[in-house]
Order: sequence, then C-alpha cells, then structure tokens
Amino acid sequence: MTKSEVITKLLPKRRAWPQAAATAFAPANIALCKYWGKRDAELNLPTAASLSISLGRLGSEVTLAPRAGHDRFTLNGKLLAPESSFARRAAAFLDLFRPAREFCFEVTATNTIPTAAGLASSASGFAALTLALNELLGWRLERRQLSILARLGSGSACRSLFEGFVEWHAGEKANGMDSFAEPLAARWPDLRVGLVVLSDKEKPIGSRDAMAQTRDTSPLYAVWPETVTRDLVALKEAIRRRDFTRFGEVAEGNALAMHATMLAARPSILYCLPETIEAIHSVHALRAEGCEVYFTMDAGPNLKLLFRKPDLRSIVKGFPEVRVVSPFAT
Amino acid sequence: MTKSEVITKLLPKRRAWPQAAATAFAPANIALCKYWGKRDAELNLPTAASLSISLGRLGSEVTLAPRAGHDRFTLNGKLLAPESSFARRAAAFLDLFRPAREFCFEVTATNTIPTAAGLASSASGFAALTLALNELLGWRLERRQLSILARLGSGSACRSLFEGFVEWHAGEKANGMDSFAEPLAARWPDLRVGLVVLSDKEKPIGSRDAMAQTRDTSPLYAVWPETVTRDLVALKEAIRRRDFTRFGEVAEGNALAMHATMLAARPSILYCLPETIEAIHSVHALRAEGCEVYFTMDAGPNLKLLFRKPDLRSIVKGFPEVRVVSPFAT
Repeated sequence: MTKSEVITKLLPKRRAWPQAAATAFAPANIALCKYWGKRDAELNLPTAASLSISLGRLGSEVTLAPRAGHDRFTLNGKLLAPESSFARRAAAFLDLFRPAREFCFEVTATNTIPTAAGLASSASGFAALTLALNELLGWRLERRQLSILARLGSGSACRSLFEGFVEWHAGEKANGMDSFAEPLAARWPDLRVGLVVLSDKEKPIGSRDAMAQTRDTSPLYAVWPETVTRDLVALKEAIRRRDFTRFGEVAEGNALAMHATMLAARPSILYCLPETIEAIHSVHALRAEGCEVYFTMDAGPNLKLLFRKPDLRSIVKGFPEVRVVSPFAT
Repeated sequence: MTKSEVITKLLPKRRAWPQAAATAFAPANIALCKYWGKRDAELNLPTAASLSISLGRLGSEVTLAPRAGHDRFTLNGKLLAPESSFARRAAAFLDLFRPAREFCFEVTATNTIPTAAGLASSASGFAALTLALNELLGWRLERRQLSILARLGSGSACRSLFEGFVEWHAGEKANGMDSFAEPLAARWPDLRVGLVVLSDKEKPIGSRDAMAQTRDTSPLYAVWPETVTRDLVALKEAIRRRDFTRFGEVAEGNALAMHATMLAARPSILYCLPETIEAIHSVHALRAEGCEVYFTMDAGPNLKLLFRKPDLRSIVKGFPEVRVVSPFAT
C-alpha cells in the first residue's frame, strides 16, 4: 500500500479551485502512552495505539499559498535551504497533494514552541500543514480523515489535529484507514505539563532510526506492544476517574518502559544525559516530600513533568527553569 | 524444600571432630551474564543460568574456630554488633551447620576488596565461609557440592568457589541439587577488568528486594530469562573463540538489559547516578576512538570495565581512578 493510494481514497474526486492562501494552527502534543515502533514504515502505521495530551497554544502555524516555479519554505522568519531536513520532508509530503505536477507552494511556518522548549515540532508542523492544505485546496475533510493524511507526514502528527487528550488508534488494516486520531471527551482543567529542558545538544540518533533499531535488536521489545496496550487502558481509566496518582504512575512507567527497551537495544540507545538522571532523582525526591509530580520523556534528554495546579509552587521551587503549560486553559 | 533438607543430602553422615581452626579464601566475582530473578527464594535458585569472572586475589578470607557461648564476628579487624546485617546473615547461615545446638563460631573475616572498590563482598564472604566450614568440620566435600551450600547463603556466592570464568547452572530440580557452579576450561590471560567507583552512597534498594520487585512489576521482565539464556550461549561461544568484540557486546548488552528491566519496574528501580551516565558516555567515546572497552554494572551505580591488556594505557587516561584486575594472572 502506498501513500498515493491512501490519498486517492480520501481526497474528493472533484477538485476545488485553490484559495489564494490559507493559514492553520496545530498544537504540539506529548505522548502519555508512547508511540514506539511501526507496523508499516511507509504509511507510519504504529504497532500499538498511543495517547497524548495537546499543548494548547504551543504549536505550529502554517500559511500556504500557491506559487510558480518551485516550493519555498520559511521557518520562523528564515528562508530554508531546499536541501534542509525540514524542507525536504515537507516537500515530499506536498508532492502527495499537488493538484498538478507544476503546482508549487509558498510555505510559511512559525513555531510558537520556543526551540529551547525541547519539543519536537514535526508533529504540530505536519498537522498544521495538513489543515492548511485542506483549506487551500478546498478538500472539506473532517479532522479524523485529516489525521490519517497528517500521519503520512509524521506518525505523531495525527494526534496534533485535536486539543486535549487524544488517542491514536493502531488500526489493523494494511491501508491504515482505521489508524486515525480521536479526542477523548474528558477535560482536566487542573492538569499541568511542565517542560524541563536539560540540553539542546543534538540527539545521538533520530527517533525514526531509534525505533527501527529498538524493534530489530532489543530483546525486551517483544513485550513492548502489549505493555502499551495495557497502559493505554489503565491511563484512560485513570483519566475517566480523575485518579491523578494512577495517571502519573502509568504515564511515567510507560515512558520508562520505552526508554528501557531502547537501553536494551544492541547497540544500546541512551538518550539520558547526566542531567536527565539528576532531574529524575529530583522528581522522585519531590514526590517523597509529598508534591505529587510524575514525568514522561521522549526521544531526547528532556523531561516533561505532569502535575496539578496546587503543586505549581513546589514544582517551580524544584525546577526554577520549568515552562508550565495548561492544556485545558481556554 | 528447605535448606536443612538440602544439607542433610550433602553433608557426610559420620561427623568428623572439628579442627581447632580453619582459614579459607574466595574471590569476588562479576557476572557477565547476570543472575536477576529467583525461581525459589528460600534456596536461592535462579530463574536462569549465569556466567561470571572471578577477580583473582580480590575477595574474602575467613577464619573459623569453635567458640563457646555465642557466635562472634570480626570484619576487617572490627568486632561486629550481633544485630548488624552481616552478623545476622552469617549467623543464620551457620545455624544450618552447627554440629550441636550449643556449638558456636568465632568468625574472622577480612575483605581484600577495598570497600571503596564498590564490589559486593557477600558472594566472596559466603564462599569463603563455606570453604572454612568444610575444613573446620571435616566434610571433605568437592567444590561443586560446596557451591550448592554457599548458594544457600547468597546466590552468587556459588560462583565464588572457582577461579576464572564460572557458570552457575540454573538447574530444574526443586531441591536445587542441579543448581551448582562450574568453571569453564578457558583462560584469557589478556583480559582485564577495571573497577570504576562512582559513588559510595547507600543504594536505594538492596538487590534481593530489587529482584523481587522487578520480577513482580516490570512488564519487560517476561522476556528477561530467555534473554539471559541466549546471551549465555553467545558469551560462551565468544570466550571459546576469544572474540573480544562479541564478548564485550554481549556482556554490556546483558547488563543493560538487566538494568532496563529494573528501570521498567513500577515503581522504577534506578541505580544510575548522573556520574554513571557520564561514565557510560565516556566508555562509548573511548570505543568510538578505537579503544575497545565495554562495561558491565550490577545493582549499584558503579561500572566494571572489560578490556584487553594493550588498551590499558587508554583506559587509565579515560578513567584515572580505575582499579585494574587481571583475572588470569598467576
């Protein structure tokens, strides 16, 4: 199954006339139950479902306009070289949707995520790009369908189509038409996410390669998909009951299980820096003092704290550099 | 099955008259393929086999003499309080072997492992104690049988009955009579073990409890025993062929897999300190520079380096504080 076949299934047969320009925003998202391992690398189909929280106004805004000649990409006010990683990935994604072979795009992207926040912007970037395409090319698709298209650009981008808690269904079909994202109804206004940046050094290995290496060489990977499946059920139950302790324990446990499967890869994949371990010990120390805080971490050395509003003061004391996000603030 | 039943099976029926005193030495050992998880906690029977390297003259020397009244323990020249952890464990072990209820022991133990070397001394301690008992009480048992008895005091003690590479068979019997240690014939004179001590802080959790918590709560533990079984075969093959690269890769991978299963326990068990991560990154950096060094680590924050004699100079440059052991030096 190729990306083009998926797109032919989803896009309207009658093409609308492109708009002059379209702008869209999509939030960044943090996985509480991780996406780690693909059943199909071409379509970015995951081995297991995952669950994330979107980060409100932290995300990416993309403006699209038709352009003659060749694509042009501007990121945070800077013109990108066509051979840069972002430009190449975005151009390959746009290739899937050009109304005509010579149809090119002017792409202007702005991340409202400070680069220093240590968050990946590819999820929100591809989600915003998909939303902007939907506007510009008049597809009038629903978010669920758009989440399938965004997934073709970056797996976790499908979750950035929605606010709040978002589940990405693993699906079973080879064409991935049942592997879409969907928001949970639950809101948790008290919930806070704290971004703790520990290093902006370049990662030793990108997540795409790290996933493949883990799946292919880690003796512990065999039980990872079932771990995710179990954690996802527990996490949804904890959210439904607003059981923060259970919520935090499962999210932290799931993140550590993911890093554990990577640690056991051969050769080992170690995203932790000394500062990461120090911060983890700080989280444990805060918790021992009665401040209920948990963490999650992705393919990098930074921590994302999970806590509730009343603990904000203790968190800031323990982590003076933390950037706090209120995912359910309006 | 109780410890006493095992002992009745092994000890000679006709008791010899105790000697006036007996002294024995046993080396410390470092597992290259780890013992982590018991199938029987009473008899210290492991879920899987393991493989270690003994550390030559680094170990424990124990002198035993009969004594009236009550046991008395001296460790490294210091009289121990009867309620200290070492005295209690040793007394419980001696209880299994007293020729008469009122028979007590004077136990004088000296560790030739500097405490600052960050090595557990319980394995060499129980092994030396077992050897001294064999002498003092005239059992005349073979090392293989003594390894079964030493195991009752501390699982990994059974491996300290031998020099060089030692395999501890998991066995299948409920009474553990087939769970003994045995030396490999192979010698590897070039092999060096470097002890890198990073902290002498007390561990967050002892290995006995950590094993149980990992087995009971880590979603990744399910595949640990089969990982060990596979690694053990690979390690023996690498030793047979003197394939140091394979040897180091498997030993390092096995240690990381063990720590990964602990990291995924809930709550997580994290023996790493920031210094540990720093040292791991240093090992990887040395390796990238062409100095072939690998590491293993146990239930603590310290690293044990594995390398060959020609790389000694680079190792000492990278780790000035390293203490180097030549396991096959005569």
